[in-house]
Amino acid sequence: MRFRLLIEYEGTAYFGWQIQNGQRTVQGEIESSLHRILGDKTSIIGAGRTDTGVHASGQTAHFDYSSELNTLRLQRSLNGVLNNDIRIKEIQSVDDSFHARFSAILREYHYNISRQPDAFMRNLAWNLTYPLNIDNMNEAAALLLGRHNFGSFCKIKSAVNHHFCDIHTCEWKNKGDLLVFIIKADRFLHGMVRSIVGTLVDIGRAKLDISAFKIIINARSRPAASQAAPARGLILEKVYY
Amino acid sequence: MRFRLLIEYEGTAYFGWQIQNGQRTVQGEIESSLHRILGDKTSIIGAGRTDTGVHASGQTAHFDYSSELNTLRLQRSLNGVLNNDIRIKEIQSVDDSFHARFSAILREYHYNISRQPDAFMRNLAWNLTYPLNIDNMNEAAALLLGRHNFGSFCKIKSAVNHHFCDIHTCEWKNKGDLLVFIIKADRFLHGMVRSIVGTLVDIGRAKLDISAFKIIINARSRPAASQAAPARGLILEKVYY
Repeated sequence: MRFRLLIEYEGTAYFGWQIQNGQRTVQGEIESSLHRILGDKTSIIGAGRTDTGVHASGQTAHFDYSSELNTLRLQRSLNGVLNNDIRIKEIQSVDDSFHARFSAILREYHYNISRQPDAFMRNLAWNLTYPLNIDNMNEAAALLLGRHNFGSFCKIKSAVNHHFCDIHTCEWKNKGDLLVFIIKADRFLHGMVRSIVGTLVDIGRAKLDISAFKIIINARSRPAASQAAPARGLILEKVYY
Repeated sequence: MRFRLLIEYEGTAYFGWQIQNGQRTVQGEIESSLHRILGDKTSIIGAGRTDTGVHASGQTAHFDYSSELNTLRLQRSLNGVLNNDIRIKEIQSVDDSFHARFSAILREYHYNISRQPDAFMRNLAWNLTYPLNIDNMNEAAALLLGRHNFGSFCKIKSAVNHHFCDIHTCEWKNKGDLLVFIIKADRFLHGMVRSIVGTLVDIGRAKLDISAFKIIINARSRPAASQAAPARGLILEKVYY
């Protein structure tokens, strides 16, 4: 039997999603909680690895178990055992053909920027109080729509076959007191959203203009882009199947 | 010279607002930061004392200083020195007649209830997943509007002259994924919002009905009301002058 988990977490206290020896990770916490509840050692597979300090409101994972489970009871048990910065939002029984990582067709990330000092959002947003030209940031963001080589926005040590990603949504929106970057794509490279955000912020504060941004995209080399934005503003919002 | 501070804080890590020997309090942190920046020992007076674990998005305070100050620079210095769960939103020079506590004409509190497990709001909301009848909760809340004796919703050991408060707003609203109780009054008694919320939630879950609520109000005695809601959902939203 295969089960799908919908998971929300504040990543502040974790060394990212992926299980690592001797480090506190989200995957590690959920696996050891499942072990404690089900009695069996259970591996889970997530839709995407999030880095240290990155959050998720819609991380998705699956695991296999030898028999039927009461999913509502398991959800409650997991939320009882887990620290409350990780919450299981839903557990569903799914077909064996479902795979949290390979069945995903799109992933959506949000990046929060707070424009005022904000005590409540301190771990969930990058606080930038200097002026930002949102129109310019959106003009540059629109250039990323479609299928492009994102070599300029990928960590150098990342081992991937190619750097092409198909971007479906890429825009900045005001949402209450926050400025939120919304990006949806078929795949993301390592460090991609944070390096795009860092570069678009440099456009917003007029350190870079649109023509410089085009040169950065075409360079297909990470050093061309700006410094990555900090992890705390990044949220894996949703995985689409 | 008198200066007014607008202060936001997540109260989770503090023993409330008021300075206490040997405890970490919001007032204590701000006073020691002012001392560090200005060189002089500076007392601040807040609009209202919040209890351990209670938050504020609009706490207001004032302090006196012997000379003119660059308020924007002081705001930045304070935010640089303070832990980022306390943020100074604004500092203004005000007339000597202004008093953060005595000039306040109304105070507004919010109480957040999350209806789903929520990793991001874990310190800012009471998580209640059982069904709640919001209409009944609002029918009861409306009975509190106007001037009434709130003896049933005041901590027993509280030393006040009288228990009368004039309630201007008292209602539950859905706000995104949260259910928010909004209450605005000329004054609040110790523990008042949390005991009202605890009692209204008992109405929402049908442990109490409207006639029982009327009996509770008229009892003018704290044991008549329900258990207080936890501190973490309560926010001092705004002080009106």
